Amino acid sequence: MSSQQNAECCEPTLSEALSPDRAAELARSFKVLGDPVRLRVLSLIAARRGGEVCVCDITDAFDLTGPTISYHLRQLREAGLVDCERRGTWVYYWIIPAKLGLLSQFLDPADTVTPTAGA
Amino acid sequence: MSSQQNAECCEPTLSEALSPDRAAELARSFKVLGDPVRLRVLSLIAARRGGEVCVCDITDAFDLTGPTISYHLRQLREAGLVDCERRGTWVYYWIIPAKLGLLSQFLDPADTVTPTAGA
Repeated sequence: MSSQQNAECCEPTLSEALSPDRAAELARSFKVLGDPVRLRVLSLIAARRGGEVCVCDITDAFDLTGPTISYHLRQLREAGLVDCERRGTWVYYWIIPAKLGLLSQFLDPADTVTPTAGA
Repeated sequence: MSSQQNAECCEPTLSEALSPDRAAELARSFKVLGDPVRLRVLSLIAARRGGEVCVCDITDAFDLTGPTISYHLRQLREAGLVDCERRGTWVYYWIIPAKLGLLSQFLDPADTVTPTAGA
């Protein structure tokens, strides 16, 4: 079963009329991506290609305090871009491909622009 | 000539190490997308599928003042997501597929997650 399949079904593309509710929902996700540290944290997690990353490794990779990293991870989690699980001392994070796919598809100009356009 | 081709060459995907400079650049674009009105304005322009939209039609489509719409259009333009040209009384806007493609590709989980991942 593909979780990506579910999330992308019936989702709008940029070239479709965007309801205020849907726009608000998408904007919330993009706003969370609109921070360089969060993008780098997300990138670090995504670099495991579907695997998990210990919060200890994420914190080690940045010259930032634990609480700051935790804040950014919480923002990413609340936006549905990553999920996590505590096991013993550490929390492990992984990306949610379905959510990333939804945002990627929304912006995909192949869904927006005809091949002859853009001249 | 495809402008998209140039923009997407050598651009990082989410699963690659993201330099602070590149993260800052991408985050600026996502931050601009992190506003529901801007997303709806961009969607309205993109709905022309590579064609142009008069600023008068954009303003008519929203219950917002001209200066507010102009502010959002300027943000979109400064982020390289749209471009415009004045002709006579009106300014005409169109999307930049190359920039949208770059952001879409960056988030694409197909570049991030192996087929067997996510279990």
